[in-house]
Amino acid sequence: MNTSIYDQDLGKNSANFQPLTPLSFLERAGQVYPERLAVVHGRLRLTYEQLWSRCRRLASALEEQGVGRGDTVSVMLANTPTMIECHYGVPMCGAVLNAMNTRLDAATIAYVLDHGEAKVLITDREFAPAIKEALALASTKPLVIDYDDLEFPQTGEKLGSLDYEAFLSGGSAEYQRGFPLDEWDAIALNYTSGTTARPKGVVYHHRGAHLLAVDNVLTCNMPSGAVYLWTLPMFHCNGWCFPWTVSVVAGTHVCLRAVRAATIYDLIAEHGVTHMCGAPIVLSTVCNAPDADKKPLEQTIHFMTAGAPPPETVLAAAKEAGFDVTHLYGLTEVYGPAVVNAWKDEWDTLPASEWAALKARQGVRYTMLEALDVLDPETMRPVPRDGKTMGEVMFRGNVVMKGYLKNRQATEEALAGGWFHSGDLGVIHPDGYVQLKDRSKDIIISGGENISSIEVEDALYKHPAVAGVAVVAKPDPKWGETPCAFVELKPGSIATAQDLIDFSGKYLARFKLPKHVVFTDLPRTSTGKIQKFVLRDKAKQEAD
Amino acid sequence: MNTSIYDQDLGKNSANFQPLTPLSFLERAGQVYPERLAVVHGRLRLTYEQLWSRCRRLASALEEQGVGRGDTVSVMLANTPTMIECHYGVPMCGAVLNAMNTRLDAATIAYVLDHGEAKVLITDREFAPAIKEALALASTKPLVIDYDDLEFPQTGEKLGSLDYEAFLSGGSAEYQRGFPLDEWDAIALNYTSGTTARPKGVVYHHRGAHLLAVDNVLTCNMPSGAVYLWTLPMFHCNGWCFPWTVSVVAGTHVCLRAVRAATIYDLIAEHGVTHMCGAPIVLSTVCNAPDADKKPLEQTIHFMTAGAPPPETVLAAAKEAGFDVTHLYGLTEVYGPAVVNAWKDEWDTLPASEWAALKARQGVRYTMLEALDVLDPETMRPVPRDGKTMGEVMFRGNVVMKGYLKNRQATEEALAGGWFHSGDLGVIHPDGYVQLKDRSKDIIISGGENISSIEVEDALYKHPAVAGVAVVAKPDPKWGETPCAFVELKPGSIATAQDLIDFSGKYLARFKLPKHVVFTDLPRTSTGKIQKFVLRDKAKQEAD
Repeated sequence: MNTSIYDQDLGKNSANFQPLTPLSFLERAGQVYPERLAVVHGRLRLTYEQLWSRCRRLASALEEQGVGRGDTVSVMLANTPTMIECHYGVPMCGAVLNAMNTRLDAATIAYVLDHGEAKVLITDREFAPAIKEALALASTKPLVIDYDDLEFPQTGEKLGSLDYEAFLSGGSAEYQRGFPLDEWDAIALNYTSGTTARPKGVVYHHRGAHLLAVDNVLTCNMPSGAVYLWTLPMFHCNGWCFPWTVSVVAGTHVCLRAVRAATIYDLIAEHGVTHMCGAPIVLSTVCNAPDADKKPLEQTIHFMTAGAPPPETVLAAAKEAGFDVTHLYGLTEVYGPAVVNAWKDEWDTLPASEWAALKARQGVRYTMLEALDVLDPETMRPVPRDGKTMGEVMFRGNVVMKGYLKNRQATEEALAGGWFHSGDLGVIHPDGYVQLKDRSKDIIISGGENISSIEVEDALYKHPAVAGVAVVAKPDPKWGETPCAFVELKPGSIATAQDLIDFSGKYLARFKLPKHVVFTDLPRTSTGKIQKFVLRDKAKQEAD
Repeated sequence: MNTSIYDQDLGKNSANFQPLTPLSFLERAGQVYPERLAVVHGRLRLTYEQLWSRCRRLASALEEQGVGRGDTVSVMLANTPTMIECHYGVPMCGAVLNAMNTRLDAATIAYVLDHGEAKVLITDREFAPAIKEALALASTKPLVIDYDDLEFPQTGEKLGSLDYEAFLSGGSAEYQRGFPLDEWDAIALNYTSGTTARPKGVVYHHRGAHLLAVDNVLTCNMPSGAVYLWTLPMFHCNGWCFPWTVSVVAGTHVCLRAVRAATIYDLIAEHGVTHMCGAPIVLSTVCNAPDADKKPLEQTIHFMTAGAPPPETVLAAAKEAGFDVTHLYGLTEVYGPAVVNAWKDEWDTLPASEWAALKARQGVRYTMLEALDVLDPETMRPVPRDGKTMGEVMFRGNVVMKGYLKNRQATEEALAGGWFHSGDLGVIHPDGYVQLKDRSKDIIISGGENISSIEVEDALYKHPAVAGVAVVAKPDPKWGETPCAFVELKPGSIATAQDLIDFSGKYLARFKLPKHVVFTDLPRTSTGKIQKFVLRDKAKQEAD
């Protein structure tokens, strides 16, 4: 690199360089809009001054316990104010937030706690049974802090030595943030059931969280003071970074413990909700609610959906109900959504079938994503933009993960050749919009949750009567997809479908259980590989 | 720094790290919205595909001429498509854009070309007289390229060896950007007349330009497809970064060679303008135009104003006319605006005088600015937030300049102690909003232009009859401020006010000439320093 006059005496210093971090958004909201409503939860209200102050107390209290840079704080929380506070308070003291899927089974929770080396666990009483079992299984012995939701009391056992409110009150609201030291420092750890039964820990950094949080504002046209309803679990890729996004616009978080249509309509009406996110099933639950549960919408509500293309009937119902739906796509490895079906006004007048075909496409890169393309994974060359040639969808940019925790090989494979290999197969249309066609990693997306078909297969394989098994996605009008198991029994063995479903419940969280079990000879290639595409076709033909 | 599990095998690579640059915004707009209208200029229309392609041609053509990383490309251009193209094409090949103030005198232009070591000069025929003289004065001999505006033909001499269109057509539209190598690399060089008669070259980097460009979208609530009218000169801090901001939302640039009310109303009506910027005088010109020049506004137009607090009468007229005015504040050293008078709805119902008092405040930090405060420059401690105690307004963050080109001492002084010292004196109110009270650097802001009082004093001091001189700002209903000179003549010497004004015209651009000359004994402190605050009071009392 030849140096120029611009390379002389123009270096970084503390006046002109600061690490990018989403923590600065809360600080600004706390400073500029201290009196603005930050959080609604039942009858609880927090202003930005209060929220910021509570987050500083949390950081301070964690630091008092010896938690610092690069330590993991795991949480098992519903969409409550505590979950929002953890998104700020944990990284403020340099620690890394590991928000766990609340539907995980005890064995997986134990694996996650151990692998992530959790130093602290903050847990909602609702999830006490699984957590208790997990803590017994885990080698790691984190400091356990119970969160007792006074607005929506839960009856689960208290497992910890400390209560969250008491813990918080021991911290100082004057806490001065000294982290991150570098914008590349980790901010979050999210386990994916992406590719295999063994979850991988996806690591995000402050820089990426900052950029994606801002990009959500751009992508979703969020104005200052937007009102955001938490229909999307915050444990999903940190709620697609929206816990940080809401602070960018100093908006209001409306918390929600469970997705129930009547509650959602009540909250929309009471708080003037403007934005919400969720899997298509959430949109469908809201739009297809009984009339008694519904309330008229007084404002247009922007609904961002991802996980699967929203079915045409759901889109029509949403439009009718007054929701403006944006279709996003992404993976845990890209901070949640990093692709948007950027809608063009001129498409609105197209015939219904063309309109729906365009709506089903995943779309184009987020503003902060450097590049999105469909490549031949062998040659790493882009496939022709013909809407037909299949390839692997790949991502490049600052909103691609640091990598997988303690898994150098998987990181190197996932990020080989300058691209994140999503494992999703798709095509790219002449206008540059990407559309998924299949998933090479055999993931089933049910109600917005990823289910590894391999994990389900592993559970069924444990049954003594099972000789062979292949699990594929079966399209489902309610859940999007459900696991459908094709099973070869051992000669002479007997088992019913219900036997197998009940048996797999020993190893799997309930949402992962196969909904259908079909006894059949498994179709195989000449090399013995099961032909899943044949089974996918068969699954479609099975009665619901 | 103790290392953690997150420091292992989770480094940067080309899949997950890319330098931030505003160039990526144009690339995305070109890819996602190729058919969308990017530029309007007279009858000329450019789509995003065309604009992006032209910018790549420019980069390629520059590279062919040996222009590369860290080379300066100076331009003397009105708000034309060429000026927009230079904001992308120049940094795309690694070079640094130096957009010069079109009102500069030949001597200053020559100084800037020499100091910035301009390798190329792209110049509009309109400015040929001053440029011709400057080129004769300058030691640097840049490659000169004439821009001949076919939409609004100019009669100035062609000075260069090349025509812009011909030059562009020699470049390749397939040019692949390889820059910036680092997001800290320089993108722009803007000379300020900030503190002394000798302009200083403020250097911006790609990172800061990216962040401020995005922040304008957040601050000004710009939706996708916003229509931006160029009432603000792009040579002012790169048009406050709006040449890059418009690409973030894939909006439309409506060009404008000169601020004329009738043209502005025509363009607003014809193109559905949604956003525009300018000094208060521009707002005033638009709002106080004769009825014959006006057209009814069919949409709310967001007008961002900075340079001086907008006078109450102008604000009232703007509101009446249908403009939604946002008051910004900044300096060249912070990429233009970095402070916004973030308006709160509850203030709308206040009595007029309180409302105007709040509107006059400079406000709070931009989202991307890390910190804004008023400090005692001696102790570097924040002043009390009482709205009364004066201190110096200081900035910290990623949107503070790299520093001054080839001026290590000035850079170190300006960025000492972890803050950029603005030289502006002000107070901070209990709610954290900053308000300017005086400028320690003796800058006069006239029609949105900075005039150094020292430079005007230097010119007057050259007159043989002048013994002492002090120039201060005199409030002006039209220009905001004008230079007012207080002069002590040498004993026995004779000169009229007009003599001195004419004389200073030899050294100063016309807009810098004193409008008033007052003969008086200069008030001095016991140490002989002229008491400018006394003169400022006197200037206010002078008849217009």
